[in-house]
Amino acid sequence: MAPSEQPLLAADRPSSQHSDDRDIAEEDALLTGERTERRNGPKSRWAVWREVGLFAWALLATAVVIILAVVYQHEQASHHRPSAGPKPSGKRNMIFMVSDGMGPTSLSMTRSFRQYESGLPIDDILMLDQHLIGSSRTRSSSSLVTDSAAGATAFSCGLKSYNGAISILPDHSPCGTVLEAAKRAGYMTGLVVTTRLTDATPACFAAHVNMRGEEDRIAEQEVGYYPLGRMVDLMLGGGRCHFLPNTTDGSCRKDGKDVVEMAKENGFNYVSDRTGFDGLNLGSSVKLPLLGLFADTDIPYEIDRRTQDDIYPSLDEMARTALKALSDATRDSEKGFFLMIEGSRIDHAGHGNDPAAQVHEVLAYDKAFTSVLEFLEDGVEGVVVSTSDHETGGLATARQLHETYPEYLWYPGVLANASHSSEYLAKDLRSYVASKDVIARGDLKSHILGLLKDGFGVHDASDSEVESLIAHPTSSDYIFADIISRRAQIGWTTHGHSAVDVNIYASSHEHARPLVGNHENTEVGEFIRDYLGLDLEPITKELQDKGVLYNTLDTAGENVSWTGKLPAEGVLLDECDHYHGDFKRDLSAHEHKH
Amino acid sequence: MAPSEQPLLAADRPSSQHSDDRDIAEEDALLTGERTERRNGPKSRWAVWREVGLFAWALLATAVVIILAVVYQHEQASHHRPSAGPKPSGKRNMIFMVSDGMGPTSLSMTRSFRQYESGLPIDDILMLDQHLIGSSRTRSSSSLVTDSAAGATAFSCGLKSYNGAISILPDHSPCGTVLEAAKRAGYMTGLVVTTRLTDATPACFAAHVNMRGEEDRIAEQEVGYYPLGRMVDLMLGGGRCHFLPNTTDGSCRKDGKDVVEMAKENGFNYVSDRTGFDGLNLGSSVKLPLLGLFADTDIPYEIDRRTQDDIYPSLDEMARTALKALSDATRDSEKGFFLMIEGSRIDHAGHGNDPAAQVHEVLAYDKAFTSVLEFLEDGVEGVVVSTSDHETGGLATARQLHETYPEYLWYPGVLANASHSSEYLAKDLRSYVASKDVIARGDLKSHILGLLKDGFGVHDASDSEVESLIAHPTSSDYIFADIISRRAQIGWTTHGHSAVDVNIYASSHEHARPLVGNHENTEVGEFIRDYLGLDLEPITKELQDKGVLYNTLDTAGENVSWTGKLPAEGVLLDECDHYHGDFKRDLSAHEHKH
Repeated sequence: MAPSEQPLLAADRPSSQHSDDRDIAEEDALLTGERTERRNGPKSRWAVWREVGLFAWALLATAVVIILAVVYQHEQASHHRPSAGPKPSGKRNMIFMVSDGMGPTSLSMTRSFRQYESGLPIDDILMLDQHLIGSSRTRSSSSLVTDSAAGATAFSCGLKSYNGAISILPDHSPCGTVLEAAKRAGYMTGLVVTTRLTDATPACFAAHVNMRGEEDRIAEQEVGYYPLGRMVDLMLGGGRCHFLPNTTDGSCRKDGKDVVEMAKENGFNYVSDRTGFDGLNLGSSVKLPLLGLFADTDIPYEIDRRTQDDIYPSLDEMARTALKALSDATRDSEKGFFLMIEGSRIDHAGHGNDPAAQVHEVLAYDKAFTSVLEFLEDGVEGVVVSTSDHETGGLATARQLHETYPEYLWYPGVLANASHSSEYLAKDLRSYVASKDVIARGDLKSHILGLLKDGFGVHDASDSEVESLIAHPTSSDYIFADIISRRAQIGWTTHGHSAVDVNIYASSHEHARPLVGNHENTEVGEFIRDYLGLDLEPITKELQDKGVLYNTLDTAGENVSWTGKLPAEGVLLDECDHYHGDFKRDLSAHEHKH
Repeated sequence: MAPSEQPLLAADRPSSQHSDDRDIAEEDALLTGERTERRNGPKSRWAVWREVGLFAWALLATAVVIILAVVYQHEQASHHRPSAGPKPSGKRNMIFMVSDGMGPTSLSMTRSFRQYESGLPIDDILMLDQHLIGSSRTRSSSSLVTDSAAGATAFSCGLKSYNGAISILPDHSPCGTVLEAAKRAGYMTGLVVTTRLTDATPACFAAHVNMRGEEDRIAEQEVGYYPLGRMVDLMLGGGRCHFLPNTTDGSCRKDGKDVVEMAKENGFNYVSDRTGFDGLNLGSSVKLPLLGLFADTDIPYEIDRRTQDDIYPSLDEMARTALKALSDATRDSEKGFFLMIEGSRIDHAGHGNDPAAQVHEVLAYDKAFTSVLEFLEDGVEGVVVSTSDHETGGLATARQLHETYPEYLWYPGVLANASHSSEYLAKDLRSYVASKDVIARGDLKSHILGLLKDGFGVHDASDSEVESLIAHPTSSDYIFADIISRRAQIGWTTHGHSAVDVNIYASSHEHARPLVGNHENTEVGEFIRDYLGLDLEPITKELQDKGVLYNTLDTAGENVSWTGKLPAEGVLLDECDHYHGDFKRDLSAHEHKH
């Protein structure tokens, strides 16, 4: 190797004896402060100094380069801000969680409940609390108060539509969803819920109908019988009754289609019970595509499911199964997966005005959220975003029981005493009533008092409360819920939804930067789209182009769109938010909600 | 200068002719790819190459250092995260805004109201909405539902205390506040409110009493008659009646002390009406210290004040006056100012369950927030943080009027039709009733229908609504509020407070980094303390040490603490959150709240 080609720092590079001697002498001089003897002339000495200086300069600068590069890279890693603009590259997973019907008060209520029940300090907060990044405005195109269909369409298509629309726009044309676009782009896809898989939130990701009530049609589309073919790789939840033909026990279909069989024809593996679920080994034994239907309709509330764990899997178990299965299935892929996980029945507890059921639903959701965070911590690039479609119930952790006395407190202990939901107690009561031809009033009363004692820990039921349950067993859900809400001093203003902004949570501010702060719900859909680098337009076009081939004729020979019937007139009108003076209710009328 | 001492890059350093020639030749070689003629021996050639290489290396590395340093500094600037740890340095201002009683629903309601009223698109949002950074957990030491006193103590002292405590801890010792510490540290200080300056929120920054009801005592402390002397430089708001001796018209004091006179003795300039306020020229003609009392008790709700602008200044006017005055007064100081601005009566509209009054209160607050942002935009270093102490009313933008029909909508138009608050209409009704010895039923009914029409735009009052107003003129505030709430389909669960988390807003994420996400309300107080670089401990000690000198004897010769009487037993007990089974209400009893 020619000297000029040798690396500067090569160990064997020829060294000058002069320079060695000189270096040692100069080192001594530096240490002692004395000048070295000039063994060379001025010019040579200058060259030596120059070379030493250059070398020191180069070394120092290189060291600074290394330090700065390391520090900069570290800063970059901790401040990573994906911009909303350019599409991201690289493999990534998106887990989108929906806490259906969970408004801001649900968090405060559940957090205090857990602190009370477990004797935790006031700074013990939910995992969700630790990941708050913003809030979402929820109105639909047809009302200031959205339903879950319009709410989920904002997430799935990134567009506003009318209450009841399942990924259908106000002009009744279908809009491509992030799940469909993700599948087309090579991602794996999944839906995990605790309600019916045909209910509005999951439906909006993989079906298109004009009215959310068309759950039979939704079931068919979800397993691939619609213009795009099979788009979902994994579905876990309830709602089996819409997949079974009406000739079968446990069916709620209007027709005789066997959608489970149709699913199998489309390649789906099918599990239908706890044994089947256990066989999935929390995801490590899953063969995709997978359809898992674990309840006729809804999986029971967590407060009740806890004691039926041998029948129904939990939200957390289903979520972990989906994460493992989709993660394994995409291990060798360039793309990751899109998974939607819904805490579906927080909403139901809101509709039922049942605070005890709700706190357990929120805790179950928080647990699943924690599992997703853990998955992301040791996995590939990914993000979890969690938000609600709307609030349900007009829930308030405050209730004024007396005209003159607004107390500043509520009682989490009342919720902690409840071991079952009002739904569960009402079902028991109806079964008891139905099981007898004749019931002695005293027996019924005893049974009710027993239910209140064993199910709610309520020992101070008033006569009128018991009388109300005796008189109205069919609507006893609401009466049971009211008994517990009043004692806990929890208030509700409706059995429907409300318009309050709902919270947005994410694994980190950095990963979900475009959702930090207050946003329209459609921006959540836009975030999913952009995070996965998707284009929904071609999907929308394909749905519209191919859709015509999927229209059918009804028995009268009339053309029926593959997206089903249109809603009755008036549903889409903006004016439905306008007061037309039709309030004619008596102020003194008893405002019973049950 | 000896060659060895010369800087390497000195322009006049002696150069070797050899090296010059060589450099040019080698430059040619580099350009042509041809080897230069070896004019020196191998060793010399190696040295030349070595030196050139070293120089190139050093230059390159230095260039990289410069590039990296510039990029890193740029990144640092855009990612600036002030840590909570080290105390900040440099002049700075802190504006702390409190939206008393404003929960998450108030925002959604007000935003939709404004969109409706002004015909704005759905993406027209409040200034507050654009500055959401997190939320605050609000419980007090004595209850899951705080009052404004414990809520403001969390802000002022950064510590939890019991409901009713005015910067007093659960052991009844006073705690130093951020305002007091700021004043001691050389900042100027101010309080701006629309309620009484002696009410809980402002009181907690500049007074210490065991029970919030001791407003006479609070007035004295606020103008400097307490252990620390005068701590507030500027006070604007209502509550004049607690500053006037009970020998004066418009006084509500129990004693004959003239606190206005006491304030003047302590140096305060005093203005008491709109003319006086106008003389301040929005702050440019202020002489500090300043006490401005513009109403006997509360300044009217904004919805009513709009038409009495010649009598009462607005929150925004007072806020801008304070900003200008404090900013001018600290122009030549090394320290800036601490200013607390409260939208006090959002809370009152919540207590009164009056949605029309509330939306105007929130809009007035949003306007003041906007003015503060504008002030910060062209001023010195500073931050505005805005939050609430708690929610009031259990407000929900949803109300179920019928047993079987939870509608998914509410009517902002009903609120837009209202030109006055229920408080205003009720006061009118009471005056009308009081003004006559005998009133014909027909006349009273006509008067009420006129009030509803002119004040609320309600033309469809039912007979029972009118009958209710005739029967209960003294509690007609609540009946009027219910008439409008029902028509707007706005729900409330209490006339008291609730426990939902409240939002935190700030001029930027960067300036209020420690408050991003979900936080305990005491962390808001800690943030103010840290942002201003304050130490509250010495203030607490001074209050406790000097306090003994301020204790007095009552007429019976008993020692009375300068912090006033202690609350009745039981108020401080943790167990007040525990349900003791005392619910004995009849389920069928009419749950009137008025």
